[in-house]
Amino acid sequence: MVDGAPRIGIIMGSQSDWPTLRHAAQVLEELDLAYETRIVSAHRTPERLRAYAQGARERGLQVIVAGAGGAAHLPGMVAANTALPVFGVPVESQALKGMDSLLSIVQMPGGIPVGTLAIGKAGAKNAGLLAAAVVALQDAKAAAALDAFRTRQTEGVAEVPVDDA
Amino acid sequence: MVDGAPRIGIIMGSQSDWPTLRHAAQVLEELDLAYETRIVSAHRTPERLRAYAQGARERGLQVIVAGAGGAAHLPGMVAANTALPVFGVPVESQALKGMDSLLSIVQMPGGIPVGTLAIGKAGAKNAGLLAAAVVALQDAKAAAALDAFRTRQTEGVAEVPVDDA
Amino acid sequence: MVDGAPRIGIIMGSQSDWPTLRHAAQVLEELDLAYETRIVSAHRTPERLRAYAQGARERGLQVIVAGAGGAAHLPGMVAANTALPVFGVPVESQALKGMDSLLSIVQMPGGIPVGTLAIGKAGAKNAGLLAAAVVALQDAKAAAALDAFRTRQTEGVAEVPVDDA
Amino acid sequence: MVDGAPRIGIIMGSQSDWPTLRHAAQVLEELDLAYETRIVSAHRTPERLRAYAQGARERGLQVIVAGAGGAAHLPGMVAANTALPVFGVPVESQALKGMDSLLSIVQMPGGIPVGTLAIGKAGAKNAGLLAAAVVALQDAKAAAALDAFRTRQTEGVAEVPVDDA
Amino acid sequence: MVDGAPRIGIIMGSQSDWPTLRHAAQVLEELDLAYETRIVSAHRTPERLRAYAQGARERGLQVIVAGAGGAAHLPGMVAANTALPVFGVPVESQALKGMDSLLSIVQMPGGIPVGTLAIGKAGAKNAGLLAAAVVALQDAKAAAALDAFRTRQTEGVAEVPVDDA
Amino acid sequence: MVDGAPRIGIIMGSQSDWPTLRHAAQVLEELDLAYETRIVSAHRTPERLRAYAQGARERGLQVIVAGAGGAAHLPGMVAANTALPVFGVPVESQALKGMDSLLSIVQMPGGIPVGTLAIGKAGAKNAGLLAAAVVALQDAKAAAALDAFRTRQTEGVAEVPVDDA
Amino acid sequence: MVDGAPRIGIIMGSQSDWPTLRHAAQVLEELDLAYETRIVSAHRTPERLRAYAQGARERGLQVIVAGAGGAAHLPGMVAANTALPVFGVPVESQALKGMDSLLSIVQMPGGIPVGTLAIGKAGAKNAGLLAAAVVALQDAKAAAALDAFRTRQTEGVAEVPVDDA
Amino acid sequence: MVDGAPRIGIIMGSQSDWPTLRHAAQVLEELDLAYETRIVSAHRTPERLRAYAQGARERGLQVIVAGAGGAAHLPGMVAANTALPVFGVPVESQALKGMDSLLSIVQMPGGIPVGTLAIGKAGAKNAGLLAAAVVALQDAKAAAALDAFRTRQTEGVAEVPVDDA
Repeated sequence: MVDGAPRIGIIMGSQSDWPTLRHAAQVLEELDLAYETRIVSAHRTPERLRAYAQGARERGLQVIVAGAGGAAHLPGMVAANTALPVFGVPVESQALKGMDSLLSIVQMPGGIPVGTLAIGKAGAKNAGLLAAAVVALQDAKAAAALDAFRTRQTEGVAEVPVDDA
Repeated sequence: MVDGAPRIGIIMGSQSDWPTLRHAAQVLEELDLAYETRIVSAHRTPERLRAYAQGARERGLQVIVAGAGGAAHLPGMVAANTALPVFGVPVESQALKGMDSLLSIVQMPGGIPVGTLAIGKAGAKNAGLLAAAVVALQDAKAAAALDAFRTRQTEGVAEVPVDDA
Repeated sequence: MVDGAPRIGIIMGSQSDWPTLRHAAQVLEELDLAYETRIVSAHRTPERLRAYAQGARERGLQVIVAGAGGAAHLPGMVAANTALPVFGVPVESQALKGMDSLLSIVQMPGGIPVGTLAIGKAGAKNAGLLAAAVVALQDAKAAAALDAFRTRQTEGVAEVPVDDA
Repeated sequence: MVDGAPRIGIIMGSQSDWPTLRHAAQVLEELDLAYETRIVSAHRTPERLRAYAQGARERGLQVIVAGAGGAAHLPGMVAANTALPVFGVPVESQALKGMDSLLSIVQMPGGIPVGTLAIGKAGAKNAGLLAAAVVALQDAKAAAALDAFRTRQTEGVAEVPVDDA
Repeated sequence: MVDGAPRIGIIMGSQSDWPTLRHAAQVLEELDLAYETRIVSAHRTPERLRAYAQGARERGLQVIVAGAGGAAHLPGMVAANTALPVFGVPVESQALKGMDSLLSIVQMPGGIPVGTLAIGKAGAKNAGLLAAAVVALQDAKAAAALDAFRTRQTEGVAEVPVDDA
Repeated sequence: MVDGAPRIGIIMGSQSDWPTLRHAAQVLEELDLAYETRIVSAHRTPERLRAYAQGARERGLQVIVAGAGGAAHLPGMVAANTALPVFGVPVESQALKGMDSLLSIVQMPGGIPVGTLAIGKAGAKNAGLLAAAVVALQDAKAAAALDAFRTRQTEGVAEVPVDDA
Repeated sequence: MVDGAPRIGIIMGSQSDWPTLRHAAQVLEELDLAYETRIVSAHRTPERLRAYAQGARERGLQVIVAGAGGAAHLPGMVAANTALPVFGVPVESQALKGMDSLLSIVQMPGGIPVGTLAIGKAGAKNAGLLAAAVVALQDAKAAAALDAFRTRQTEGVAEVPVDDA
Repeated sequence: MVDGAPRIGIIMGSQSDWPTLRHAAQVLEELDLAYETRIVSAHRTPERLRAYAQGARERGLQVIVAGAGGAAHLPGMVAANTALPVFGVPVESQALKGMDSLLSIVQMPGGIPVGTLAIGKAGAKNAGLLAAAVVALQDAKAAAALDAFRTRQTEGVAEVPVDDA
């Protein structure tokens, strides 16, 4: 865990979403940005959702990353309860492979936005990176860490594919 | 409108859903069952949603019909806030023709059910009929009205198709 | 099995649907509500389907939960043969992962409703819960059991995700 | 209408399916094959469906063409009630454009077949042609009419596209 | 193999389709109907396809069952080259699970029909049964075998699901 | 247009995307936030895209809203060329109704995020709102404008649906 | 029409495909490349297809552009009958909007390639451009025309969107 | 590897795409056509992409085969930076099985073509074959190799399926 008051909240609908969402946490670790993690179920704990979202800004959060699967209402309902930027991660579901999660998150009506990332691990990682990009707008250290991350990423791409990778 | 205390609540996310949801109301009129109608937006009026759902049982409602389109969170969030049976109507959306609405409503996680009907008008009518079937379990007059409706419906099917129908 | 005359019938198109549908049975066990289970194939045993559905109300059933996969005609054909509320469970199919089951169940024409739940296990569990919610409207003991179930469910959601869950 | 005892039955779930299914009738007219047309709703008239299907062979029918839309159970339920060949026509539906109709008809479980044609008009025409091909196996006049139809069809294809067609 | 001149041809685009298509063969074995099997690739052996389809009727075939996967052109191209009834079996494909196979087979334009069955094993079995139903129209022994098959099938459906099936 | 140096860039792949994207501009007008608009085609003007994205941060932009349709590469390629937060708007396409646009934008690989909004007008409006939420983190006036917008929005939801709306 | 022996053949399954395919012709006009147009139906004129494809190389064609809709077998069957490069254009279909056409064309099995373009007009135009790019590899005049086309295209993109476009 | 200056470039977005794209390389080996392989990520190495594509023609390349998965922007962005023919291979993705890759590649707007092959291995092999067909237009040895490949392929199709293949 990174020291300091968290500016980024990573929430998910269930413990079973953590293997996906921890990729958001891991990239924030790599960028040395403080975050918190919570399980907040839109359906099983609607009061917790309301309290979390309505209190987020006052507690110092700047961005909320919310992941859920199936009829994934968590990101949208968090966004309904806070004006902070909310980024949604569709978790891959059993039968429909996350297409249900994706449409449930991204197709928000005009008025309440959720910035949606890709289904699964890539989306969780990118939600972390996007949260960092927002924080970096007012934090030079975070901006430098993000720039360095991207430079490393570019430099890490091999020139030629190899058979035994 | 039918006289008497409503046992069925018909709610929708927006005025624009009414041309669909009124088909639920119309069939309840035909069955002479009292109902109420409300606009309750999960995203724009989350507090109204919470109050409506949490107070529904005490106000005498027995069934809630909830219709919404796109990332349709209304039925599921109502179900998260009441133990009454909730029936969801996916409203046909602009781009994805209600496939997003359907998946957002039907793919609820285990623990919080929403009985989902077809996309659009047929689904709204059927939500009314299903609500009536639930009420009819303890109301002989409603049961008789429903049976009569079904008999009329069966008898109304012509034997042979005609060109100028 | 729960003692007493069953008010809820759980039927399925094939023995192979039981691993899905037993999640409906399990939640009814947990709620101490009597139910019966039957295999009723719309396609291979249409006469059994007709007899089961047409006799359901007289035998004391109040709700029918019907699960099937692929071109899943069982829920809709049961609903065509009884005015009782019918809840449909789309069983995950081999090739199309239950999308065919879902559309075959949910897209009923106006006039004959089927309240449809999610594809697979979550849907079966929720069909049991929705059936219980209907029964609970006229059975205080069932209502109390359902409320207790939901309270336990809410309380069982951990605050923070953990790596070794 | 063509004279003689009909060997082909064209049935549909609703009067609203006739603008599609009449393309089956038209091609049979062109081939001079006798047919009958009926409205048989799986959901609104399940007893009519049962009687029609169970009596079809004795009444001299050899093939049944059945069209329906949405959760289209008619072709499959007819096939469940007769051993005659059944050909299904998915009617284009409002929201999902017939994808629901198609999957509800074609994804039959092993044991009860429905030979499924394309969504809409092309499928209805082809159901008529396929029914004719079956009848033609034991009717030299029908076979000759079908061969002539196909020859005309081949010869009717222009060599070069034109702007004002 | 069943003795006698085959009236049913079972063809497939590749050896890799045989694990699916052999379910068509197996049901014909069970019904004691003679059939032949061939690999005919629309894309790799277009001349073989043409010869097979154009010679089918003269060689005594009455029905052709054709299975293929992906951009599955075999059933439609066989139908383009013979007036015999052609039944298509969409083989489950690697990436799109047979949805590509299904649409490539079923969405034939008006004029050239292919009666399409379900994706995969169930579809292959049903193609065999549908071919048998066509042959049975003029073969009392086949009709009796098919009726017996269906009776056995109905009687084989257990009443109640069991845990250890 | 709003006075002041723009902190938000609204770009689109083609003039034909403007009827969608202007909903982003309109909501920024309503919030009194300065923005700029540009046509930047990933495919027809790749050098313009590169220059725009690489120079965005230095020119004072904080957020980029990018909309495109079909194989919509603009948002992702902008994100590849800047570390600023990028929000993508899938424009509704002719044949596939924006499903292609959505998947082309949202399914970014891990490492380069694009926060994706809904297909079409609702998505464009929400992209504007999400951009405003990001700017509002460091601009009290913008935060107040956004809060006021949301309050007005909540208060503007009627209680009851009406027939002549 | 452009003078000279055509090196590019534009074929389509039906006259009704011409409003789409003529966009391929128009771009070749603009590039001053000779082409021919033919209606070749895979299903209604399989012999014409075979003759056209097998004779194409000897007649001097270098590339074939083939467009079709629904179960679109034309491009793949042409590719099965010639080793020339074949580019396929999925024509937008009535019910499934060209998704069936796309999958029927693009999902070719390993061994027989079809280079597939977008659904509809854009795909037809791009098939013409891709054919030109192939011809340009050995024709400096065509290469120059193509380069000029692309330069004009880039220069034609306006900087800023306008309301009255 | 084949000797000589490569005329075909095989590029991919990531090392993880190589198990798919090497099927393109393998078929070029079999045809004895020189090629090169590179990893070029549209998102992580946009400058490498630009340099590769803009320099391709001068370095002697005639065709570029580009494979990528998910929001697969590589083929389209290469095509935006070169007038050479570009063939795209949609790599099968984790959640959506390559449907996202396919639509991101094939649905290019009019003006910049990408000839798209099937999802996965078959598509990669066919991209190699299509590249060879283009090269063969001006290289008699390549044309002969391609003709021989196709003859071997046709001759390699067994007549009858076997159980133990």
